[in-house]
Amino acid sequence: MATPYTRRNFLKTSSVMAVSAAGGLLTVGCGGGDSGSDELLPLVNPYYTQAVHGPYERISIGRLELAEGGVLPNCELAVATFGTLNADKSNAILIPTWYSGTSKIMEQVYVGPDHALDPSKYFIVIVNQIGNGLSTSPHNIGGALGGPNFPKVRISDDVRAQHRLLTEHFGIRSLALVVGGSMGAQQTYEWAVRYPDMVKRAAPLAGTACNTEHDFLFTKTLKDALSSDPGFDAGRYDLPEDVAAGLGRHAKMWTVMGWSTEFFRLNRHRALGFDSLRAFVDGFMIPYFAPMDPNNLLAMAWKWQRGDVSLLTGGDKAAALGRIKAKVFVMPFSTDMFFPPSDCLAEQVLIPNSAFRPITTVDGHLGLFGTDADAIAQVDLNLRELLALPA
Amino acid sequence: MATPYTRRNFLKTSSVMAVSAAGGLLTVGCGGGDSGSDELLPLVNPYYTQAVHGPYERISIGRLELAEGGVLPNCELAVATFGTLNADKSNAILIPTWYSGTSKIMEQVYVGPDHALDPSKYFIVIVNQIGNGLSTSPHNIGGALGGPNFPKVRISDDVRAQHRLLTEHFGIRSLALVVGGSMGAQQTYEWAVRYPDMVKRAAPLAGTACNTEHDFLFTKTLKDALSSDPGFDAGRYDLPEDVAAGLGRHAKMWTVMGWSTEFFRLNRHRALGFDSLRAFVDGFMIPYFAPMDPNNLLAMAWKWQRGDVSLLTGGDKAAALGRIKAKVFVMPFSTDMFFPPSDCLAEQVLIPNSAFRPITTVDGHLGLFGTDADAIAQVDLNLRELLALPA
Repeated sequence: MATPYTRRNFLKTSSVMAVSAAGGLLTVGCGGGDSGSDELLPLVNPYYTQAVHGPYERISIGRLELAEGGVLPNCELAVATFGTLNADKSNAILIPTWYSGTSKIMEQVYVGPDHALDPSKYFIVIVNQIGNGLSTSPHNIGGALGGPNFPKVRISDDVRAQHRLLTEHFGIRSLALVVGGSMGAQQTYEWAVRYPDMVKRAAPLAGTACNTEHDFLFTKTLKDALSSDPGFDAGRYDLPEDVAAGLGRHAKMWTVMGWSTEFFRLNRHRALGFDSLRAFVDGFMIPYFAPMDPNNLLAMAWKWQRGDVSLLTGGDKAAALGRIKAKVFVMPFSTDMFFPPSDCLAEQVLIPNSAFRPITTVDGHLGLFGTDADAIAQVDLNLRELLALPA
Repeated sequence: MATPYTRRNFLKTSSVMAVSAAGGLLTVGCGGGDSGSDELLPLVNPYYTQAVHGPYERISIGRLELAEGGVLPNCELAVATFGTLNADKSNAILIPTWYSGTSKIMEQVYVGPDHALDPSKYFIVIVNQIGNGLSTSPHNIGGALGGPNFPKVRISDDVRAQHRLLTEHFGIRSLALVVGGSMGAQQTYEWAVRYPDMVKRAAPLAGTACNTEHDFLFTKTLKDALSSDPGFDAGRYDLPEDVAAGLGRHAKMWTVMGWSTEFFRLNRHRALGFDSLRAFVDGFMIPYFAPMDPNNLLAMAWKWQRGDVSLLTGGDKAAALGRIKAKVFVMPFSTDMFFPPSDCLAEQVLIPNSAFRPITTVDGHLGLFGTDADAIAQVDLNLRELLALPA
């Protein structure tokens, strides 16, 4: 394996060489302009690759103007599809991704012939959210928008980008279902509110339409764990390893809030193959986050904090949720510590044609990972019922 | 007010002066020996004073050998008492303190003529835990055991110290009640298990007898928030302000886990007088922790993590809890995120003569602060019932 070039290596070498190449792994554009103190070359990160998360296709949807005022001049979405679009294009299902996740885990846990999301019946499109490392992201965009200079992206920007992808690239005008967990649920809600005629059914798992203040602060503590690491260096680190301490603290905080007190009391972590909580943290949680790019995580976290469908209706949450025409099953996970059922129920009652379908599990929010087969079976049962409802 | 001398100021001046004095606020012993790289003089911290937390009396219980092998050569406990010990010394109530708390908040929230803990009926002894800043603590001990060199203290050490205080200083041989919240509950359980004949009644609020792995990890994230601050400097900072960023992150993590999702959904923070969550964090949570000494907090957190009555019975939790002769009301707070009712119930069923009496509140663990008057009324109702039971 070639020694990975890093951003600072590039900057150092680019000061004496006009063009460089990263062992064939990257095509590096010329920054031009001044000596590039704000120009960051893309980082090579072997985690965000076809080898780890493929197959996926990167599809450009062109220039994307962002809600906060920034621009992605060439927004590329990494997309994985399963099944075949039928003749009348009525069998499309969209799955957006969650914080730190990619299309791969959605495929592995939720898609297949044994699941409600069956590629023999549906054309399933999993779109990686902007900033997740496969789609256009802080670590891979390079140039003036690279790293910590990546523009602020909103949930609504992802949904508008996905809308363009589906309509212009795939010619899809109707979605049989939008389903996603956590930040995927935030995008699911945004879809149902923003494009009510297009979304026939929606299934937000373990997520809310309008993020709560409590969740906002939890996410802030996650961000602080990363940005407070001296190795983070205001986002101009070389490699995720430079921010290992911060990523480790971030992983521990995820362990505390991501599962549940019951999960650990019932020794579910032992059932997953770890002798102790320490082994679980060291062997699963820390390694899970360790290869991820901190600026990518921070871009997603900023977006997560501000998920809010009511931005479309002047802050009126009831008006926003009242726009929804889809049949909606609201599916919190019963032991979720930051998207708790109570917060989801408070929204569900504002949605016409909706039902509250909590998933019973002790695995907390991260039951989304598929650690509790019974929870996924409950999700499938609900999705089959939802999909059987007339559009 | 005199300019407070700080540890490093002292070290600097002591290198040229044999003896120093801190504006009369401190009596400074001579370190002697080498130039004192490991000898830390006590820190002056105006937060840990009679002006803020008094009145209390500092009572020496002498040399305390610690469970982990260290020694406190002169262990002083800060004690606040209310009411009068009756002739047969049968009306004594002991209240130990929680993490970050002192005798003052226990007095303000739980003691008084309108409460079950009524000084006209009982002799109430509130003992500040070792390390809390009023009793012998990292910041005030000075010398070779100062700051980060403070020896590891266990819950059982506190309880043995308190036992010596009560029996030798006050001549008390029977406790009508031990009651405490959080780490105070850990001490309450340790009391009932270690001295079963002395403790007639016990009321652990929002705490467990054996700390859980989940809670251990939560506390680890709190510790990490402090120790990862570059200003912490391995515990050799000058002032809490040097660790302000770490203390701030610690405060935010307490906000996330200390209250509850319901607390924020129902805008309880607004009911407490704060316009927003940010105002609540900036105006209450951060200022609450800001003046506290990080080494004190870390000493308490280490102790909290390892609260475990089964250390007395070779790791057999059922055997430990089975030793209890006291009447026990186990009182978790219903929305507590790290001492949840489920963990407390799993212990209660192992305790003879006990009842499970959860307190219904949306204020989470920090409902202990008395923010929900109805929760405190429920505590009082239960304590009155418990105190009315025959010893």
